[in-house]
Amino acid sequence: MSAPTPTREHVATSLPGALVDTASLAAAASDRSGALGADPVAVVRAGSVDDVRRTLAWAHEHRVPVVPRGAGTGLAGGALADGALVLDLSGLDRILTIDPVEELAEVEPGVLTADLDAAAAAYGLMYAPDPASAAISTIGGNIATNAGGMRCVKYGVTRDAVLGLEAVLADGRVVRTGRATAKGVVGYDLTGLLVGSEGTLGVVTRATLRLRPRPAATATALATYPDVESAAAACAAVGAARLRPSLLELLDAATLGAVAEHTASPGLADVGAAVVAQTDGDDAAEATEAIERVAAVLAAGATTVERTADAARADELLAARRLALPAIEARAHALIEDICVPRSRLAEAVRGVERISAETGVAVFTFAHAGDGNLHPIVTWDRSVPRDSGVPAAVEEAAGRIFALAVELGGTLSGEHGIGTLKRAYLGLELSAEVRDVQRAVKAALDPRGVLNPGKAV
Amino acid sequence: MSAPTPTREHVATSLPGALVDTASLAAAASDRSGALGADPVAVVRAGSVDDVRRTLAWAHEHRVPVVPRGAGTGLAGGALADGALVLDLSGLDRILTIDPVEELAEVEPGVLTADLDAAAAAYGLMYAPDPASAAISTIGGNIATNAGGMRCVKYGVTRDAVLGLEAVLADGRVVRTGRATAKGVVGYDLTGLLVGSEGTLGVVTRATLRLRPRPAATATALATYPDVESAAAACAAVGAARLRPSLLELLDAATLGAVAEHTASPGLADVGAAVVAQTDGDDAAEATEAIERVAAVLAAGATTVERTADAARADELLAARRLALPAIEARAHALIEDICVPRSRLAEAVRGVERISAETGVAVFTFAHAGDGNLHPIVTWDRSVPRDSGVPAAVEEAAGRIFALAVELGGTLSGEHGIGTLKRAYLGLELSAEVRDVQRAVKAALDPRGVLNPGKAV
Repeated sequence: MSAPTPTREHVATSLPGALVDTASLAAAASDRSGALGADPVAVVRAGSVDDVRRTLAWAHEHRVPVVPRGAGTGLAGGALADGALVLDLSGLDRILTIDPVEELAEVEPGVLTADLDAAAAAYGLMYAPDPASAAISTIGGNIATNAGGMRCVKYGVTRDAVLGLEAVLADGRVVRTGRATAKGVVGYDLTGLLVGSEGTLGVVTRATLRLRPRPAATATALATYPDVESAAAACAAVGAARLRPSLLELLDAATLGAVAEHTASPGLADVGAAVVAQTDGDDAAEATEAIERVAAVLAAGATTVERTADAARADELLAARRLALPAIEARAHALIEDICVPRSRLAEAVRGVERISAETGVAVFTFAHAGDGNLHPIVTWDRSVPRDSGVPAAVEEAAGRIFALAVELGGTLSGEHGIGTLKRAYLGLELSAEVRDVQRAVKAALDPRGVLNPGKAV
Repeated sequence: MSAPTPTREHVATSLPGALVDTASLAAAASDRSGALGADPVAVVRAGSVDDVRRTLAWAHEHRVPVVPRGAGTGLAGGALADGALVLDLSGLDRILTIDPVEELAEVEPGVLTADLDAAAAAYGLMYAPDPASAAISTIGGNIATNAGGMRCVKYGVTRDAVLGLEAVLADGRVVRTGRATAKGVVGYDLTGLLVGSEGTLGVVTRATLRLRPRPAATATALATYPDVESAAAACAAVGAARLRPSLLELLDAATLGAVAEHTASPGLADVGAAVVAQTDGDDAAEATEAIERVAAVLAAGATTVERTADAARADELLAARRLALPAIEARAHALIEDICVPRSRLAEAVRGVERISAETGVAVFTFAHAGDGNLHPIVTWDRSVPRDSGVPAAVEEAAGRIFALAVELGGTLSGEHGIGTLKRAYLGLELSAEVRDVQRAVKAALDPRGVLNPGKAV
């Protein structure tokens, strides 16, 4: 399937709009995966669907690999473009319509996720998927990876929010998939197939997205525990009580220690684990009543439980979670992993990660979307090692063992970040040979020349 | 793609388990689409995954078309099997596990939808999709058509409830798709691709389904209006107020008249349109508070509004909706249509259907999942015409014009019943040539010999 690498000169002279200057190439050379910079052949900054169509038709004709790119904030290497043409969609950044009656938005792929959510807020609506990167990542990238976030536990992931797409196929044909109605069952679900396909089946140029009523009020709780087992058991009990917080996050002791060091405040440094929960509702009374129910369940086994309906205090309670990744990244190089396990096996997963950390001598910090069983073990190594010398073998080993652990516990390699290049070697842990054959058959059906983001996802 | 028709003798002698007796063939000859009986070649009643695997491997080798079948309650002809082998999955009817902690069920495809919901209720959970056929239709058939129902307006359709599948491919290979975790983004969404594919891409032999907390309490309201515009406007206002009833149904004057005649009670015979709404919550107070908000919005333009938290009275308020289809089918032959339009165009759609009815002289009765913009225009003709003389030309014309109306209003041919054979001729109204090409490419990738349910869905 893999296409031959074209020469930079060939692309520059043959494809209108292709940029080969050093600055353009450098800007498209890396993402947030921590992988080393790639060496793209050229960059096209699309300013219209027609640019996308023309670029793909050219690439298809010349069998030149194309890597679609949004903001380059991906964590799995999906936008890395060694020897490929980068198709930069970030300039297609218009919010075309927000329809408050149908609760739909029509947007271009370069719109920043947080910008769409803010625009929806003006109509009492929200765009529910909220990856941690929402302020810097694009809707197109979110669609490519089927991005998640903290609100997913109540409102679902990106796929649940995408009703229809306009996409350009590998050969430059433009298709419109899905619908603008609440329901629709005409033909195969090509929309759902494109979501999460990491740019390997088509390039999204427009999306019809479902908005949801924006909750009028929230309430927040923070509980601390002597150990991660108690914290995980409390999260499981929230589910078992059939409660539906809009956020339910767990932080392990290592992460809490890193946050305390980063903020130079004792904070939660001596705590075995912490859980932050948030509820929402149509008014303050409803949100408060809901947080009381959640807090009552979280209290079992807890050392402390605090709840608040005050926004400023809620921010303080959420601070440890919000600062977790910055605190870790401030002290070490980091691979941000993303396993998902059955909710009831959360504690086993955290303990398993700790064991792997101890056995490999690699420091790992874990926080989790506990309500979804989605853990982010942050696998780190010393900042004294130059970043461009690659990922140390012990770190690779720890990451590989974490993937194996996830599958062993009945889980998955990736809850919301995708496969990209970084996890591709581990796909066999999770998917059978037959399923991988089917994936390849689908890829070949839509992109017979293999020009779209080769070497990613499948 | 279409395979040659095999002889009955050939199948009976060459495929172990193939039944060709008159009773077996007759039982597999029709569905609830109203289409005339088909002429299947033979029937295999699968008792295990291995039966399915062996049957498909045999059919693939001999290029014999196979039509998977559940309870035969489909409304679009998806299970019709002219000249094909019927693979009856209704005997694979075990609920394998209900996991109250993960809120998952693992089931075989022949389980009746209502039986799963009842089994989940024992754990305080529900299986949310609730097609009107839930008591008689199977999970496998629901998955094949991506079935909807009344609760969809709050809880989503079948695709939203399916996390993973075991399926047998056209050549007999068994694949396991999806996940048993809350989130997962590894590889293409083959699960979502199989859902709604009407048995044309694989035969589902097991499903991992998401259960949801079962609401502890409900409350119900019935509002009547002088005309359908007022009723539709009231439904739109409920959405605009960002309220989320768990059921929001509209009935037109013709339907209300039919129900009054059927029940021999004046009931709502003189009403221009009616809306039934239901809300749910963690306790009676929450459900009641929610129905008060909904009723307050429904009151604008209404002639009468009644609300109740009493279960017996709620049943009475819901009776007109529940009896709508039986009442119509008692008086006439019926094609049950299933268009979906943007919510705000509901009144235009109902009026458009009335106009088509007047112009073609065909009686059409409309009720709708108003919260989703999903209308069921029931296109009828006289019972004095023998059913086996086919669908009258005027009825076909009225149905075709209703499909065109749906697309003209920005909607779709089918919200929840599927394409089957009955709507296939109209696919071009909604899907571009490019999209149909992609659908066919996907079909060819998974079923290169075209043995699975040929002539359906795409």
